[in-house]
Amino acid sequence: MCMDELLLKASLARQASYSLSRTPNPVRSKALQSMAKAILDHANEILEANKADVEDFKRRFPNSSLLDRLILNELRLRDASRGLLKVSALPDPIGEVVEGWETDHGLQIKKVRVPLGVIGVIYESRPNVTIDIAGLAIKSGNAAILRGGSEAIRSNVTIGKILQDSLDGIIDKNSVQVIEDPDRSIVDRMIKLRGLIDVIIPRGSSSFIDYIVKNSTVPVIETGAGNNHIFVNWDADLDMATKIIVNAKVQRPAVCNAVRKVLIHRDIAETYLPKLVNEMKKYGVKVKGDEASRRICPTIEPASEEDWDTEYLDLTLAIKIVNSVEEAVNHINTHGTKHSEAIITKNIRDAEYFTNNVDAACVYVNASTRFTDGEQFGFGAEVGISTQKLHARGPMGLRELTTTKYVIYGNGQIREI
Amino acid sequence: MCMDELLLKASLARQASYSLSRTPNPVRSKALQSMAKAILDHANEILEANKADVEDFKRRFPNSSLLDRLILNELRLRDASRGLLKVSALPDPIGEVVEGWETDHGLQIKKVRVPLGVIGVIYESRPNVTIDIAGLAIKSGNAAILRGGSEAIRSNVTIGKILQDSLDGIIDKNSVQVIEDPDRSIVDRMIKLRGLIDVIIPRGSSSFIDYIVKNSTVPVIETGAGNNHIFVNWDADLDMATKIIVNAKVQRPAVCNAVRKVLIHRDIAETYLPKLVNEMKKYGVKVKGDEASRRICPTIEPASEEDWDTEYLDLTLAIKIVNSVEEAVNHINTHGTKHSEAIITKNIRDAEYFTNNVDAACVYVNASTRFTDGEQFGFGAEVGISTQKLHARGPMGLRELTTTKYVIYGNGQIREI
Repeated sequence: MCMDELLLKASLARQASYSLSRTPNPVRSKALQSMAKAILDHANEILEANKADVEDFKRRFPNSSLLDRLILNELRLRDASRGLLKVSALPDPIGEVVEGWETDHGLQIKKVRVPLGVIGVIYESRPNVTIDIAGLAIKSGNAAILRGGSEAIRSNVTIGKILQDSLDGIIDKNSVQVIEDPDRSIVDRMIKLRGLIDVIIPRGSSSFIDYIVKNSTVPVIETGAGNNHIFVNWDADLDMATKIIVNAKVQRPAVCNAVRKVLIHRDIAETYLPKLVNEMKKYGVKVKGDEASRRICPTIEPASEEDWDTEYLDLTLAIKIVNSVEEAVNHINTHGTKHSEAIITKNIRDAEYFTNNVDAACVYVNASTRFTDGEQFGFGAEVGISTQKLHARGPMGLRELTTTKYVIYGNGQIREI
Repeated sequence: MCMDELLLKASLARQASYSLSRTPNPVRSKALQSMAKAILDHANEILEANKADVEDFKRRFPNSSLLDRLILNELRLRDASRGLLKVSALPDPIGEVVEGWETDHGLQIKKVRVPLGVIGVIYESRPNVTIDIAGLAIKSGNAAILRGGSEAIRSNVTIGKILQDSLDGIIDKNSVQVIEDPDRSIVDRMIKLRGLIDVIIPRGSSSFIDYIVKNSTVPVIETGAGNNHIFVNWDADLDMATKIIVNAKVQRPAVCNAVRKVLIHRDIAETYLPKLVNEMKKYGVKVKGDEASRRICPTIEPASEEDWDTEYLDLTLAIKIVNSVEEAVNHINTHGTKHSEAIITKNIRDAEYFTNNVDAACVYVNASTRFTDGEQFGFGAEVGISTQKLHARGPMGLRELTTTKYVIYGNGQIREI
């Protein structure tokens, strides 16, 4: 390529974002429908490219547990295609008048929802993310620059070409750009493209996200780790507590909304802890505990100081006995990652103390932390789960890919002082 | 001090932010009233410290135009005190239920407005900013760490102590922290305090803000430069256009919402340009122009390519003749800083094309760009004007110092798949 690939594609995406921002919703939805069809029509091409990626990966990392994330098959492509159709049918976030008023000078102020512009997404493995994010970006009037992991490069490039072709004649095909250069330095340059890219969304491991946050000069929406807690209060319905803990710990232990720690009120610890430990054993969960827990159940492993800050991605659970809801909240605000936190209790006072004082994106009373998810929240689709406080917090849907603009109509007003 | 000042104060602010987040609005308002009174009661102390800063500054920079920003006097203190009372009376942004719904599983989801936590503000000169920001932060339930310029160090430290004392017995006095160490390296460390500080707001020159954005690992709300345009369309009311251009150019040429460039539709250029140039001369404005302008008015200076990207902070104005509203929008999107842009026109089509397609925080039809201001928008007070797209765009009031939290009540729900 004559011009640098990244700069060329970023410029094309920038240009496309302007025309896309004034494309009506039915046209954007039609683009997604065309993408959905193209994915199925060209399934063989995609699967062939993916097969090459998978074989390469197997050769390089013979026994990696990450292989599954890389694999595409007909079922996964059908799911991705159906996802595009679902997103295409969602209500349009663009053009909403968020608020409006008339000032004392007679100016008519409207705050209108508009696309962000160009969204840069940097992700690892899973090539279906390429399809999902392209759909969410276009539905919300944004162009997207996608940079997947080098292990999925053939799959992503093939998908990118098919998506671009499917847009032709509907919207600017440059609205979706997949970076082909597998060199890692591309990421470092991409996160410095202020002015060309409006927001960077990194998806992947905590250390990867941390690297992006620390080095990006483009604003970042951080999707982070979940060192999540469930606090079982003195008056909890213990059957409910166990059912919720099992669900949050066992169903999908590697996802970010799973539970990693259980805090138990001391008044019920003697009776409840042995029951919980027993139940956990049934599911093969490795239980660790603080000293107080180990006095009650000497068989469980000791938890180190480091454990309280660790987001276990497997079937490990650490348990701590606390004296009060205040101590539980304090422990959570010290060690949590501001993702999803839950209390199991029957009394309003403690439920309100917990929800008011825990500093997290999602705070639950008597429900599983596993519900922190765009689909479960009813957003239809999800860009990720934000654990930061600026712009978006918690599950992010289409609306979180937008910003606002003030449109002000006057009739000659000038400012007095 | 035994412990490092910055870390100590950041930790104290963090602690204070938790208690402040659950302080009811009347108590926060009372804290602001107490601050307002203390500023007046201790005016002499503040003015004495300020006098020392001013004398020092005069010695070091004998003829600096920045001296005025540093000076406090009784009038300015009375204004700052009155500002605190005004903010104390504003509606409480905290606790608002932004939206809420019940999911199919019967979960009750509420999205509740909560404080950001700890706000770090880094600013230059003006010591009254210390008072303004402390008030805005506390009213919105946030703790603040304030780092003013070293030239105002005595004023800021004195104000900080007086504010802290005035909070005693009402809220945690550690809610306001003024950094005393004048060493510049403090700024570099402050913008890396992820976890202790939730957001950094830099106020000052573009190069200063740029430096913070590029180096901060704490999320930044960028308050930026305004390379603002007014486009005079072929059908504009030319008297209105002139009145608005004079207001936007002359009233306060150094502020960020002043106009820097005027674009004129070619159909009216021959008649309107000479009139405008004449009018500008009356106010001592130095006019530059593109080639087409200079063919009509040969006396005006040529504008270089660089001029189109320059935010003049003085009485300079550059004029360009354009063929259409499309060309005007294109020029603005290429050279503007996404701050405030205006069109003067009578027809709806061009007004809508302009407002829909210009990518800026505030887009005006038939009004002066000078209205981009929290006070003028009716927000009562202003943290700054955001020129970025994430979190806040345009004038920022109390609400922009908040985030949201999802509070979810269930009765034992677990996730199915």
